[in-house]
Amino acid sequence: MLSIIARSFHPRLRMAAFHTALGQLAIQPIASVDHPHANSPQAWRDALLASSTSPKDFQLIKTLVYKPKTAKSATPVPVVVVARDETETSSSAIGKALNLKELRLGSEDLLTEFFGLDKNSLSPLALTKDNFSRVTTVIDSTISSTVAPLAVHANSSASTIFLSGSDILKYLKSLETDSTKINELDFSNLAAAAPVVPDGQAAKPAAKEKEDARIEGAAQIAIGVKKEVDFASWYTNVLLKADMLDYYSVSGCYILKPWSFSIWEAIQEWFNARIKELGVQNAYFPMFVSQSVLEKEKDHIEGFSPEVAWVTRAGQSDLEEPIAIRPTSETAMYPYYAKWIRSHRDLPLKLNQWNSVVRWEFKNPQPFLRTREFLWQEGHTAHLTKAEADTEVRDILTLYRRVYEELLAVPVIEGIKSEKEKFAGGLYTTTIEGFVPTSGRGIQAGTSHCLGQNFSKPEMFNIFVEDPENDGQKLYVWQNSWGLSTRTIGVMVMVHGDNQGLVLPPRVASIQVVVVPCGITAKTSQEERKRINDACDELAKELSTKAGIRAKADLRAEYTPGWKFNEWEQKGVPLRLEIGPLDLAKQETLTVRRDTGVKKPLPLSTVTTTIPQFLETIQQDMFDRAKKTYDERIVEVTKWEEVVPALDNKCVVAIPWCEREVCEDEIKERSAKGAEQTDERAPSAGAKSLAIPFDQSRWSPIVAGQTKCPNCGQDAKRWTMFGRSY
Amino acid sequence: MLSIIARSFHPRLRMAAFHTALGQLAIQPIASVDHPHANSPQAWRDALLASSTSPKDFQLIKTLVYKPKTAKSATPVPVVVVARDETETSSSAIGKALNLKELRLGSEDLLTEFFGLDKNSLSPLALTKDNFSRVTTVIDSTISSTVAPLAVHANSSASTIFLSGSDILKYLKSLETDSTKINELDFSNLAAAAPVVPDGQAAKPAAKEKEDARIEGAAQIAIGVKKEVDFASWYTNVLLKADMLDYYSVSGCYILKPWSFSIWEAIQEWFNARIKELGVQNAYFPMFVSQSVLEKEKDHIEGFSPEVAWVTRAGQSDLEEPIAIRPTSETAMYPYYAKWIRSHRDLPLKLNQWNSVVRWEFKNPQPFLRTREFLWQEGHTAHLTKAEADTEVRDILTLYRRVYEELLAVPVIEGIKSEKEKFAGGLYTTTIEGFVPTSGRGIQAGTSHCLGQNFSKPEMFNIFVEDPENDGQKLYVWQNSWGLSTRTIGVMVMVHGDNQGLVLPPRVASIQVVVVPCGITAKTSQEERKRINDACDELAKELSTKAGIRAKADLRAEYTPGWKFNEWEQKGVPLRLEIGPLDLAKQETLTVRRDTGVKKPLPLSTVTTTIPQFLETIQQDMFDRAKKTYDERIVEVTKWEEVVPALDNKCVVAIPWCEREVCEDEIKERSAKGAEQTDERAPSAGAKSLAIPFDQSRWSPIVAGQTKCPNCGQDAKRWTMFGRSY
Repeated sequence: MLSIIARSFHPRLRMAAFHTALGQLAIQPIASVDHPHANSPQAWRDALLASSTSPKDFQLIKTLVYKPKTAKSATPVPVVVVARDETETSSSAIGKALNLKELRLGSEDLLTEFFGLDKNSLSPLALTKDNFSRVTTVIDSTISSTVAPLAVHANSSASTIFLSGSDILKYLKSLETDSTKINELDFSNLAAAAPVVPDGQAAKPAAKEKEDARIEGAAQIAIGVKKEVDFASWYTNVLLKADMLDYYSVSGCYILKPWSFSIWEAIQEWFNARIKELGVQNAYFPMFVSQSVLEKEKDHIEGFSPEVAWVTRAGQSDLEEPIAIRPTSETAMYPYYAKWIRSHRDLPLKLNQWNSVVRWEFKNPQPFLRTREFLWQEGHTAHLTKAEADTEVRDILTLYRRVYEELLAVPVIEGIKSEKEKFAGGLYTTTIEGFVPTSGRGIQAGTSHCLGQNFSKPEMFNIFVEDPENDGQKLYVWQNSWGLSTRTIGVMVMVHGDNQGLVLPPRVASIQVVVVPCGITAKTSQEERKRINDACDELAKELSTKAGIRAKADLRAEYTPGWKFNEWEQKGVPLRLEIGPLDLAKQETLTVRRDTGVKKPLPLSTVTTTIPQFLETIQQDMFDRAKKTYDERIVEVTKWEEVVPALDNKCVVAIPWCEREVCEDEIKERSAKGAEQTDERAPSAGAKSLAIPFDQSRWSPIVAGQTKCPNCGQDAKRWTMFGRSY
Repeated sequence: MLSIIARSFHPRLRMAAFHTALGQLAIQPIASVDHPHANSPQAWRDALLASSTSPKDFQLIKTLVYKPKTAKSATPVPVVVVARDETETSSSAIGKALNLKELRLGSEDLLTEFFGLDKNSLSPLALTKDNFSRVTTVIDSTISSTVAPLAVHANSSASTIFLSGSDILKYLKSLETDSTKINELDFSNLAAAAPVVPDGQAAKPAAKEKEDARIEGAAQIAIGVKKEVDFASWYTNVLLKADMLDYYSVSGCYILKPWSFSIWEAIQEWFNARIKELGVQNAYFPMFVSQSVLEKEKDHIEGFSPEVAWVTRAGQSDLEEPIAIRPTSETAMYPYYAKWIRSHRDLPLKLNQWNSVVRWEFKNPQPFLRTREFLWQEGHTAHLTKAEADTEVRDILTLYRRVYEELLAVPVIEGIKSEKEKFAGGLYTTTIEGFVPTSGRGIQAGTSHCLGQNFSKPEMFNIFVEDPENDGQKLYVWQNSWGLSTRTIGVMVMVHGDNQGLVLPPRVASIQVVVVPCGITAKTSQEERKRINDACDELAKELSTKAGIRAKADLRAEYTPGWKFNEWEQKGVPLRLEIGPLDLAKQETLTVRRDTGVKKPLPLSTVTTTIPQFLETIQQDMFDRAKKTYDERIVEVTKWEEVVPALDNKCVVAIPWCEREVCEDEIKERSAKGAEQTDERAPSAGAKSLAIPFDQSRWSPIVAGQTKCPNCGQDAKRWTMFGRSY
């Protein structure tokens, strides 16, 4: 009966009811926000960050409902767990603590029956006097002491109120009866006590450790959480505090602010100059693709169709046919390649465009790495011979590697993708694979595809010329396509950033050097103050005009030097120069490296030569350090037993692989954690093949018919990198 | 009864029927094409041009149905006119020739009744043995002799077949009975004989004259039609033959090929450098805007909502709310301006983005001038004071003028828009107005808006700071927005192009100088040939490396010099250098200017100084000529009677204007042609206010209370340009 009441209770009435309940308890929400429906924690966080009404710092509260194993005839008593989103809530540990067997996440039916809500709308406020006694309630013991505002859904996934931890506890306590009490659990202890998971996996970082991630007293001036402990929050915080990005009101889309967009401009400028040397010209094709054209290549569209955004209406009129927004432009461009390429003299045709594409992913979005609209360049070329196409594929891949290594100071490895991982509809895909040490995951950093004749063949786009070498017979052109996106920026942030914030490689920093006046106190005379400020200003100007350095003097009177140091550190400016009265007396400036923190005085007289060299040293050091880490984390493995421990140890493995797709599927399955998945962001996914590196020489030679694949025991072909990945 | 048969006849059956009919007559279509539904001649042409199956050159056939004045009781006998699309078909002339009164274009009902088709699907093939004797059929007498394939709808606006003129005639003849024959009419004679239209308007260019527009024997190598006679076809042909653009399968969208995109890149580079000096930074905001945000500013959205494209579906899932593609980004950006601007120290905020926007116009699209997706930059800035905002509005407008005048050699006039023509939701709009002499129309070339506090006020986006000058009271920021689009390129083509094709101003030409080897005949020795080619190659290299000229040697052996001359002339390369054996002997090169055709020899020894100067001279001359024309065509008018004749004379008028909106509406109405509108592209629209020029000094001073508005007789305020426009 009660369940029927719950279901028939209109959301607005329910909302009014709990507002009344909160009111009776004298609980005043810190803020309340309406937003788009959020179907994941990330989407929810995005929606709140996009709202200007949200408090500056907040944490999400998750509400999970578990069903214990119950005799079929008995009424189940669900376990409702209220915890901070980042708290690791192991169901087996909860079961152990409550002496309940086989806790499983409750079905949607169960949620509807007990709360009349779906899982995205659940919150502690879904507990009421009506249902409280029919469930077991568990609350994360750290909540009552959490200072930051806590976000809870107001019985809708599109509505949030912010409460203090003590008010949440107060509300839940108000529901208690003599027979039904809430259970406060210390999840960090539970996690420590949890049984070791199979496969030799190390215990997951516990909530205690997460708690440590928050850096004491650093909320305003540094990143607030430690990179090594709560990487996801650290990443978001770095992007926001470095002023690179803001969240946007359409989920999965982000605003690129000048501080990050200027990096993209630096990449554009460099890459444009290089491809022009290869004879590539820039063009622009429309963002719209008609349905029939989009769906022409079957394998290709299968790869993209679940993510295509469709325009169906213009003004008040429905379009006769829906029109797609390009997820990539192969099928949009190639009908015109067929039209334009009439003779072998029209080859090679090499076009590139800088544009945005849309892939409406339903997975959790992540700024720069997985967004619904993203900026990239896409090159599309057609050639007379396969050899020419092959050469270009590698030329472009090399340019991509150089963008990462020479501009972003991020090491990558060139290789080829497995058949399973190659571009849908293409012949083969080459890739540069990056690595994020903190998460131990590989990341696809850029791809250059040879499409072969798959798109040019007669039943596809029919792009041919008369073969000049072969009596004018029809020759279907060889095609390539290649793309590099703003993902570059995300990888750079993840690899180089630290607990003070962003660390920019000098070559892409829009400000390479900041000059800060120091040693000015209340006692400093007006003249002295001016002398120091002028010296700073002059130094910045000298570096700009004489050495081509992007330098800025920060002469703002309203901020202390310490405040400025922190701001520019958060923003990742590679080098800080300080000038105080003593420096000026010695005609020196104190240099402070962002990447290492090392301080060193330099004579002012030679800055126009020493500083450019210094920046190059920083650039090289950043790359070398990252390269060393990547190299150390590629573990040569020949026995299966060593694969998962290596992955758990935040490494990628290189195995001598048979290159069979069925084996790849097995490896993915075997390397996934057998344990339950309460947290969808847990780093427990199976390993994918990342790349078959072109340079095989770094590993022991594979002996044909002798070296075996560690998974299936069949003959190994080439060393292949496998890893968890983005 | 027959009409019911026609209506119930399924299109596919009809198509089969006429294919049978054509088959019986041994008529074999040249090609047949399925395409998106075409609801205008332009859309139809676009669709055909976008298809790779269409013949290279073709002409459209229009089929018009007129209803003569008939007694109410009598059954009307419609007149079906089959003519080339560009043939001027005056209904009064037809009526006169057939001795019928008051021909009016038939209603949709009439078309359905007689042919079961809408007007966009009509074609000569809609005439069948069933309906032929119930109508009067007229055929343009030039059709039977037209050589190019003629496009006719295959009983659907989404399907076209190409027939020869004689086959169309053959088909119609096959329907004749003893009592019903087709009427062949020579429309050029009819037009000449047509009565003079009112308002002193000159007779419209007749079909005879249009016929003259086609330049004899020039189909392959030049533009094919004369700019002065058939401007619309000329424009399209120039864009296609100069390889600037191609039509695309989504109507109203076009492909910008490298030859035009490089002009946009030149504009981007120049403008980026200048706005950076003004402190503007580039950024990127998402292309999507949520409905609620888009619709926040009411006046603003009213201006755009009929043209907004809506995404309603992703993959197979309907979105919870439709999401708009930005038509412009004010409402998308300003919620974040509100979030980011917290103090007067955050001002000014100056962001710009280079992006594409979508306005799903239903008017006839025109490449570069009116397209559904277009590239532009949009700048959005926020300021503490109105004075600062005002200054920036003009600074940007000046940059826009310089883009046109200094890069594109196109003169424009700076001014302010009338209240009626200003940006929806803004405070005032400044504009640069260009002029297309061939059509005599004004064209809005770029706009810089002051939004005032309309978007920052509390009920809108609530963007405020504490006023540092005024006790920290709330100060709502002053905002500007400004945009310049790829329309720039279209205006440049229209102003400078000639009957040989495109004419590029040197500063934006991606190839400024082409070097062509000449005087090589079959008798020329291998050594001599090599010597000449090498000299050309060397000359191009010398110009590139030593003088920074974008030079290219065209050494293709398979083409004659004449062929190359034509190709580079079509593409508008500013300067051609020829080297033949005699030139080489004299150590000279023959220079040929694209803009004037003037030839002049120059010594090879000094090219690195003479050629750069020469290019600057060409640039300046092109601007000066265009400026002279523009100046001559702005006619100072103080009497109403002179307004329409001046417009008809392809001028814009400057009148001392009262600046009242009601007067503006009247002027538009009074200056529109009263004559019937059979051709929707006729240049008979009313005049709009184009701009109130900042420089009023070019006209006689307005005496307050004495100078009167020539339309309404009220006191004039400022000289204002009125004209027909794009």
